[in-house]
Amino acid sequence: MPSQNKKKIFNDPVYGFISIPDELHFDIIEHQYFQRLRRIKQLGMSHFVYPGALHTRFHHSLGAMHLMQKAIQVLKSKGHTITKEEAQATSLAILMHDIGHGPYSHTLEQSIVKGIPHEKLSMLIMNHLNLEHNHLLDEAIEIFCGRHPKNYLSNLVSSQLDMDRIDYLRRDSFFTGVTEGEINTERLITMLDVVDNELVVEAKGIYSVENFIVARRLMYWQVYLHKTVLSAECMLMNILRRAKFLTTHGTILFATPSLQYFLQNEISLSDVEENKENLTTFTQLDDYDIFASIKVWMQHDDKILSYLCKSIVNRNLFKVELSKEEIDPERIEHIKNQIKGKFNLSDEELSYLLYIGTTSNSAYDPNQPNINLLYKDGSIMNISEAADQLNISVLTTPVIKHYLCFPKL
Amino acid sequence: MPSQNKKKIFNDPVYGFISIPDELHFDIIEHQYFQRLRRIKQLGMSHFVYPGALHTRFHHSLGAMHLMQKAIQVLKSKGHTITKEEAQATSLAILMHDIGHGPYSHTLEQSIVKGIPHEKLSMLIMNHLNLEHNHLLDEAIEIFCGRHPKNYLSNLVSSQLDMDRIDYLRRDSFFTGVTEGEINTERLITMLDVVDNELVVEAKGIYSVENFIVARRLMYWQVYLHKTVLSAECMLMNILRRAKFLTTHGTILFATPSLQYFLQNEISLSDVEENKENLTTFTQLDDYDIFASIKVWMQHDDKILSYLCKSIVNRNLFKVELSKEEIDPERIEHIKNQIKGKFNLSDEELSYLLYIGTTSNSAYDPNQPNINLLYKDGSIMNISEAADQLNISVLTTPVIKHYLCFPKL
Amino acid sequence: MPSQNKKKIFNDPVYGFISIPDELHFDIIEHQYFQRLRRIKQLGMSHFVYPGALHTRFHHSLGAMHLMQKAIQVLKSKGHTITKEEAQATSLAILMHDIGHGPYSHTLEQSIVKGIPHEKLSMLIMNHLNLEHNHLLDEAIEIFCGRHPKNYLSNLVSSQLDMDRIDYLRRDSFFTGVTEGEINTERLITMLDVVDNELVVEAKGIYSVENFIVARRLMYWQVYLHKTVLSAECMLMNILRRAKFLTTHGTILFATPSLQYFLQNEISLSDVEENKENLTTFTQLDDYDIFASIKVWMQHDDKILSYLCKSIVNRNLFKVELSKEEIDPERIEHIKNQIKGKFNLSDEELSYLLYIGTTSNSAYDPNQPNINLLYKDGSIMNISEAADQLNISVLTTPVIKHYLCFPKL
Amino acid sequence: MPSQNKKKIFNDPVYGFISIPDELHFDIIEHQYFQRLRRIKQLGMSHFVYPGALHTRFHHSLGAMHLMQKAIQVLKSKGHTITKEEAQATSLAILMHDIGHGPYSHTLEQSIVKGIPHEKLSMLIMNHLNLEHNHLLDEAIEIFCGRHPKNYLSNLVSSQLDMDRIDYLRRDSFFTGVTEGEINTERLITMLDVVDNELVVEAKGIYSVENFIVARRLMYWQVYLHKTVLSAECMLMNILRRAKFLTTHGTILFATPSLQYFLQNEISLSDVEENKENLTTFTQLDDYDIFASIKVWMQHDDKILSYLCKSIVNRNLFKVELSKEEIDPERIEHIKNQIKGKFNLSDEELSYLLYIGTTSNSAYDPNQPNINLLYKDGSIMNISEAADQLNISVLTTPVIKHYLCFPKL
Repeated sequence: MPSQNKKKIFNDPVYGFISIPDELHFDIIEHQYFQRLRRIKQLGMSHFVYPGALHTRFHHSLGAMHLMQKAIQVLKSKGHTITKEEAQATSLAILMHDIGHGPYSHTLEQSIVKGIPHEKLSMLIMNHLNLEHNHLLDEAIEIFCGRHPKNYLSNLVSSQLDMDRIDYLRRDSFFTGVTEGEINTERLITMLDVVDNELVVEAKGIYSVENFIVARRLMYWQVYLHKTVLSAECMLMNILRRAKFLTTHGTILFATPSLQYFLQNEISLSDVEENKENLTTFTQLDDYDIFASIKVWMQHDDKILSYLCKSIVNRNLFKVELSKEEIDPERIEHIKNQIKGKFNLSDEELSYLLYIGTTSNSAYDPNQPNINLLYKDGSIMNISEAADQLNISVLTTPVIKHYLCFPKL
Repeated sequence: MPSQNKKKIFNDPVYGFISIPDELHFDIIEHQYFQRLRRIKQLGMSHFVYPGALHTRFHHSLGAMHLMQKAIQVLKSKGHTITKEEAQATSLAILMHDIGHGPYSHTLEQSIVKGIPHEKLSMLIMNHLNLEHNHLLDEAIEIFCGRHPKNYLSNLVSSQLDMDRIDYLRRDSFFTGVTEGEINTERLITMLDVVDNELVVEAKGIYSVENFIVARRLMYWQVYLHKTVLSAECMLMNILRRAKFLTTHGTILFATPSLQYFLQNEISLSDVEENKENLTTFTQLDDYDIFASIKVWMQHDDKILSYLCKSIVNRNLFKVELSKEEIDPERIEHIKNQIKGKFNLSDEELSYLLYIGTTSNSAYDPNQPNINLLYKDGSIMNISEAADQLNISVLTTPVIKHYLCFPKL
Repeated sequence: MPSQNKKKIFNDPVYGFISIPDELHFDIIEHQYFQRLRRIKQLGMSHFVYPGALHTRFHHSLGAMHLMQKAIQVLKSKGHTITKEEAQATSLAILMHDIGHGPYSHTLEQSIVKGIPHEKLSMLIMNHLNLEHNHLLDEAIEIFCGRHPKNYLSNLVSSQLDMDRIDYLRRDSFFTGVTEGEINTERLITMLDVVDNELVVEAKGIYSVENFIVARRLMYWQVYLHKTVLSAECMLMNILRRAKFLTTHGTILFATPSLQYFLQNEISLSDVEENKENLTTFTQLDDYDIFASIKVWMQHDDKILSYLCKSIVNRNLFKVELSKEEIDPERIEHIKNQIKGKFNLSDEELSYLLYIGTTSNSAYDPNQPNINLLYKDGSIMNISEAADQLNISVLTTPVIKHYLCFPKL
Repeated sequence: MPSQNKKKIFNDPVYGFISIPDELHFDIIEHQYFQRLRRIKQLGMSHFVYPGALHTRFHHSLGAMHLMQKAIQVLKSKGHTITKEEAQATSLAILMHDIGHGPYSHTLEQSIVKGIPHEKLSMLIMNHLNLEHNHLLDEAIEIFCGRHPKNYLSNLVSSQLDMDRIDYLRRDSFFTGVTEGEINTERLITMLDVVDNELVVEAKGIYSVENFIVARRLMYWQVYLHKTVLSAECMLMNILRRAKFLTTHGTILFATPSLQYFLQNEISLSDVEENKENLTTFTQLDDYDIFASIKVWMQHDDKILSYLCKSIVNRNLFKVELSKEEIDPERIEHIKNQIKGKFNLSDEELSYLLYIGTTSNSAYDPNQPNINLLYKDGSIMNISEAADQLNISVLTTPVIKHYLCFPKL
């Protein structure tokens, strides 16, 4: 019996209202695997710089689903046949696209769930949900994996101009208050069309696409790769690395049971694939486990762990030196000696307090399928050729920056 | 030596930019007592209904400080002498006004820190900060307590049209997306003036004041006292009450150390006043302690605790029946029997699953000092008399609603 | 042959994009009768106070049409059958609802086209358009006149919560910058439903309806009936009255031909109904005719005409004294004597420089069909009874203000 | 006696409130030379494409003045001494910077006031205002002319990152609804600083500057040089050219007296400089004169004039063909023959209906003084070198587009 309670509308400060299109969507959203995304911040540590940036992957997923409804409506209005089932499947695919994200994913993937990319986890979780829902998600999964005959539906879910990117740029710009990152979501979507089974953009939308690419790049430097955010992420990664090191060497740390599990066990992708217990435990992890434990570790005997934890909790974040060239080895040596001296550290211990690495960003990736423009005469041109003045060929070159990160001296 | 690093600007999606006016403000903001407000949501459980409502007391406090700069500038431009020191003190007072808030304050004050109002805690914490800062906060505290000779400075911090309310209404409206709650902060502040040592509003601002009162009332019913939020708060309160009951009766629950402390000890206000340890432990509590522990309790043996925790974490919130009249005792009896039957509960246990109470709201409180309007001829009139058509005398009558809250059957 | 050029999208700073739903809409919009609305400001003289308020009836009509698409979609999604033809007709009805407006309508209706209400003109113009379009507008006209069997469609076009009001409140608030007047158009529309052939609002939308009524009232006092706007309108009306007086008495004034026609001829409603020439000439009038002529009259020999014209063009607007009571006759006498003395005027001439009158506003009119709320149990309640605290019965009492308007002395 | 009425606040939908800083500003704003800017649209014919774009040069000038207050405050807070007089003068300079604009300036400068650039007229009008105000505008004029010793004050008024550009981009983006053109005015201004008497931008503002340049370019193609706008401007220019041609050849056209004056007389810059009458008449021209006359010309006997006027008033705008290469002469010949045939025109007459020309745009002009960035080490770098990825050197190359504009066939 169709329940009226399954019709729901969410208030969204970004788009106004978000409606849940049908019961299957409703059931997925209600599922605990999806509800946990309420406890995972979209932008990890960025709120240390942008205090409004506390929005979650839950909210982003709903937003992307909302945009997908509009995109499908636009394509249909331009004469492309999309069945009700295909529309539902495409929308479900974007709804679930982030379902495998753990807390501070990029950090975790380098520390306690090493080598388990969130895309793989999304896939596993979708498969479980599919079983629970009598294969109602078959087509959504096909679209998610890029195996659907209507390839443009997959493009809507994952490409250089997909609903994921369009929502996150708009939403991240909104909640950080970085208005320069604002894009015109409505215009971008209104300009979508399909040619030869691929998503394209009407040529008169060229400036909106350019604006989208430039905005994305700006958000990278100003938000996602902001020095202070980079510092906090490095610190968090090393806190977890240290915690795992201590645990592995016999120290029992306070931790929530699910975090404890990942500290005490080295879990590989195949472990997760083969043993549902591992997946279940993973889906119990969220921002709360990480931060509640870190707060306790502030009082731990291990001076490195407690130092790092106090620093991050009280926001005494490490200094970051960024440069286009590799950091001068002498400079590194100099800083190393200062840190070792100040904190009285061994070489091994030093690695928890001084981080050297690179960070990179290309606003538009020429190795991924292009954003193509459709002209009135039916011809197609790649945005990097079409943009007459904005040098997208330059934007496509990834910018690599070298960093050195260490406690303020 | 004045450090350049102590000049800082925050991005704020609500006002654009928030500047920290001086080093003393900077130092207070950097203090761990203040930084902890980053981990305390302004609206507690409201994000269950409004997924954007994750903003913190940290952000609100900065916002109120920002408005205070504007308000002081306005009053000075109208010829009122406010010294640099008074301006700083007023701004510090509003910055710290929420510093005593714990996680989900209103809920905690009814469960684990019973009878310790956050205003008292704010006072205690300010006193500690004052000692640490060589009495530089003396005047701020006087203003906070309403003991300053320039009473209108205290009005700016705490009254029916203070910077606290103006910021939270604007901010809560923004992050929930409830645009009907939007007020014109800039116009309200531009209309402020002082007569006889009291804050007043220029008469031509009357419609903005009315709009403020109506918007506040709307936010109460639509957000703060929303049925689903009420349900989540009742459940949270009873989770903590149950956890404390179990602890007191010998069960050791998983909990972060600071939460554990408040579960195991009955702390009164005088305990906090007399023993700094208690205050310190309190300042270590935040949303992470509560929710990380609740997530673990989902697996606990106590069926009531685990049921409540699972229900809240997976958002199977209880049903709420609201009515203007007292709930019919027969109806209550009927529901009680159903719940007892379904869950096989004793009477005592039932109280954790079925809640009866009242909630009330008056948009404008006639027992507090009035919002007064200043006319061009110098006369003063109370808003409830001045508002010619909007019946503020009616708005002042608190609306009491009775509720019955229980698991969906 | 359907032309692709007839699909069009307008950029709208208020709603983002406005799409024209079909060719018939496109043809009406392209028609010169509709295009002239581009040259008629929605808010007449309000831009003297709010410099952004230059938006036109053209833009408002498109906005209302846009909201109508949403409203129809909402009603259909709630199970009400609305045929494609009915949807089109309802949308056309709102598109054309203001087509009879002349420049500064309310002013003109009291001076040069006395006694010809714009509603009548709208009707006449629609009839002409209908003839030109082979009766394709028959159903739209039925809906406009309230004669359609589905009465709720007429309610959408004209009632106390119609798309006209919802758009103009939102739009006027936007362009004036009076943010207190902001309403949640999306929520209001989402809450619409139909019971017994009448438009109703779901009960949970009550706060949005209250907000709408309060916002409307605020806009009245702050914008539509603003003292300075009132002054400018009185002056404009008397400029036209004087111009007509002079013309009738043999003076030939500079004027655009269409304005000249209405200065030289006394046209009644029946003249317009019977003689298409009159209607055609009327549709040639717009803001440009009025203001271009007034600018020339600044140099006219008639001292009253030139004084009024110089005053309005250079924005030396008359003073307005407003009061709840009738203006004291002695005060009036006193001012009259001052003006007569200063300008050396006869009694008859004085009437062009000193205006006495009343202005009134009721936020919610109990004599019009009610805004009704629909409760979950199917019951219906009038908003004035349902609003538990906001005294809408008070809001319904029209507030009458008396004014005295005269040159600054 | 200082009058309280001279303090004024304008509501601005873009910035909220705009305050007039002092009486001298108030007096300039009240002056009829400034008030006439209320009747001159900032974006000329763009409202034919973007119906919200009706904002005036009056509003823009106030907005730029508002931003100037902020900019001066920022520079002062960074330790640069700006006296009260200098601040006032800089603010007055920006307030008056557009005072010489006539209606549809760029069009008029090519038709009826040929060869009289609006900058020259601004200068002449400022000189007159200065005389009327006892030389209180001396310093403002020095700043306007770039002759002030503090050159950076002139940079604030006129440079590639002046308050003029910052306001118009923001405002035009707002009123057109082209959100991609949105820039972060507040951040740009907050990043301003002064080095060696020149305005610079703090290096960390680089992305905001890039965004500003890209947004400006987008607004050029999407709004200022939009095909339809280009068409309307070409048509308007030729209407005035035809009207002047007819007048010169003895036909008396209906026109407001001030427009008549410029149709009947060939006024050169020196005529305006030497004869105040000419300047006064010029300041009486505004959008109303042009459009009221054009509306009358719709009925004129000259088939070219009436055809053009009907086409523009009823928005049957000419078709525009744009291309990067020069238009093929054969194509031109072909169209010419079609038009001549259809309208039965002589070669001379043809020039009023078929326009060939070029339009160009460079987002950043390398021949003007650079936008320079200030690094923490005190070094300065030009934005075109500093922007590591956005190829500003490419953006600086003007893009030239060739157009052919003619009636739809």
